[in-house]
Amino acid sequence: MPVGTQGTVKGITPAQLRDIGPQVILGNTYHLGLRPGDALVAQHGGLHRFMGWEGPILTDSGGFQVFSLASLRKMTEEGVAFQSHLDGSPQFLSPERSLEIQRNLGSDICMALDECPPGRMERSKLEVSMARTTRWLARSRAVPLQAHQGLFAINQGGTHLDLRRGHLAEALELDAKTPFQGFAVGGLSVGEPKDEMNAVLAEFVRELPADRPRYLMGVGTPEDLLFGIEQGVDLFDCVLPSREARHGRILTSRGKLNLKNARHREADLPLDPDCACYTCRTFSRAYLHHLFRCGELLGFTLNTIHNLSYTVGLTRAARQALLENRFPAFAQTSRARWQTEEP
Amino acid sequence: MPVGTQGTVKGITPAQLRDIGPQVILGNTYHLGLRPGDALVAQHGGLHRFMGWEGPILTDSGGFQVFSLASLRKMTEEGVAFQSHLDGSPQFLSPERSLEIQRNLGSDICMALDECPPGRMERSKLEVSMARTTRWLARSRAVPLQAHQGLFAINQGGTHLDLRRGHLAEALELDAKTPFQGFAVGGLSVGEPKDEMNAVLAEFVRELPADRPRYLMGVGTPEDLLFGIEQGVDLFDCVLPSREARHGRILTSRGKLNLKNARHREADLPLDPDCACYTCRTFSRAYLHHLFRCGELLGFTLNTIHNLSYTVGLTRAARQALLENRFPAFAQTSRARWQTEEP
Repeated sequence: MPVGTQGTVKGITPAQLRDIGPQVILGNTYHLGLRPGDALVAQHGGLHRFMGWEGPILTDSGGFQVFSLASLRKMTEEGVAFQSHLDGSPQFLSPERSLEIQRNLGSDICMALDECPPGRMERSKLEVSMARTTRWLARSRAVPLQAHQGLFAINQGGTHLDLRRGHLAEALELDAKTPFQGFAVGGLSVGEPKDEMNAVLAEFVRELPADRPRYLMGVGTPEDLLFGIEQGVDLFDCVLPSREARHGRILTSRGKLNLKNARHREADLPLDPDCACYTCRTFSRAYLHHLFRCGELLGFTLNTIHNLSYTVGLTRAARQALLENRFPAFAQTSRARWQTEEP
Repeated sequence: MPVGTQGTVKGITPAQLRDIGPQVILGNTYHLGLRPGDALVAQHGGLHRFMGWEGPILTDSGGFQVFSLASLRKMTEEGVAFQSHLDGSPQFLSPERSLEIQRNLGSDICMALDECPPGRMERSKLEVSMARTTRWLARSRAVPLQAHQGLFAINQGGTHLDLRRGHLAEALELDAKTPFQGFAVGGLSVGEPKDEMNAVLAEFVRELPADRPRYLMGVGTPEDLLFGIEQGVDLFDCVLPSREARHGRILTSRGKLNLKNARHREADLPLDPDCACYTCRTFSRAYLHHLFRCGELLGFTLNTIHNLSYTVGLTRAARQALLENRFPAFAQTSRARWQTEEP
């Protein structure tokens, strides 16, 4: 899922996004709730109509941004009071308010609000935080949504497998009464060593219900996507492909490429000769290098089109390989090319 | 002609530009000659291929930018020495070098290098400058171009009709030997009062050869376009529509609109209800106001698509009205709407 923080995947139109072909995009509850405000978006028929995107939208709970962007946070059992990062105005987010915003936005997949513990929290504190997240999950489940909206539960527990299992068991108790439409793994890719994250995924993802989508939040790089898919993950979101694009860092089937590099100044070949996106069909590295050096807006757009096309294309190819029972070979070839070929 | 200064009409792709539908776009010889360099563009098959634009391109001579952007200028009969505004490197532009750059860029319409006198130059100095421009025009005419390239002559003379007539007579002498493909009016819209510019146009445009395109350089606003067309102008270029778009100032059939204005915050109507561009078909003012307040890149793109579509559409409608012998009514209605209706 490309990330459309403020009601736009930065720098590209919905028509360009449709060509890129993601199945779902992500909208940010925190940002949209503050500006332009969920009531205004509802007035305009919901986020799909407001931003001109007809495909599915997942909205996050807003929790991650409250814990990373907002200031003067004060946690209570009821929710979290904070100051807006935009104008310092006092705000309050609770499980109910998060889902009210998401109901107003009219997204297709809603996320239940969780506390977002930092990457390496002390175990005893983490347990207290997770117990609250479970109580919040029960409150979330009770909030009525629009008929087309589904609710995902978020699993926490850092890199402690036993905590994750306990947390999942609690979610499944709630699920037995009213089913969730999917399960997300949160609290990874937040600073812990990559091998610790991977060890958790390798053990834990398969324990999430197989009949519902499994969503790994905030991941990631092409390598991370491939590893996640290998473990059974169905959904990912990450700003990395679009953010890297705006910095001239290009993802390709032959590994990463830095467009700023002088060796691309005269290069009359596409960013990725194996890519069929609009950017690769139409423009040379020399032209894109020129746009980047000039700081031209079009450079951000064209790089974003490519990086998102590459990332979405990678997941699509992985899916096809899974359907045809040749995923291991696909993953091996992809990794070998990233590591050995020169982009 | 939308302006593509550095090999891109700022913020939009060639595909979006094609949908907008201008017949010609403009590239800047000064900018492209410095970066990425005309030799590099030639290596890549010319500007059309380099920037992915298949339609006609007009390149200016570079003179205007040398006289407005570059520093430490030193004029001689041979040409003008200056320092690049990018890195201070010493550069030299002559009639021959200007056309060499344009030949390398491979544009369809080339402009002969002229001295660009400031708006209100003393008459005696202006005459000296114009005499040099005429000598430069003769040198320009002698430079071989690519087979598909045409050369336009530029007329100077400020707001002095007699100087313009004298200058045109000199150009027509050259034209009798080897014809120019068009004639441009330069040195207007450079700070002189609007009524003085219009008085010159009202008298002078009709004296330019009727069998060749007449090009009014650096103009302009919707009002200026309509006035120019009324006098017989065929071609215009101006950064105004795209630059204004990036500042949230929107051109509409009901006059100008400032997207920043709080009254657009909740407005569920397009920028211009009479416009059929992608932006107006797809997005509300409320959404565009939101993008603008957030400083989102997509806002620049969508506003540019609209302002260029509006401007190109205005000239297309004017052309149709001329073909159907109803231009005066068309112009009157357009002006009345700009002046009396609320956008």
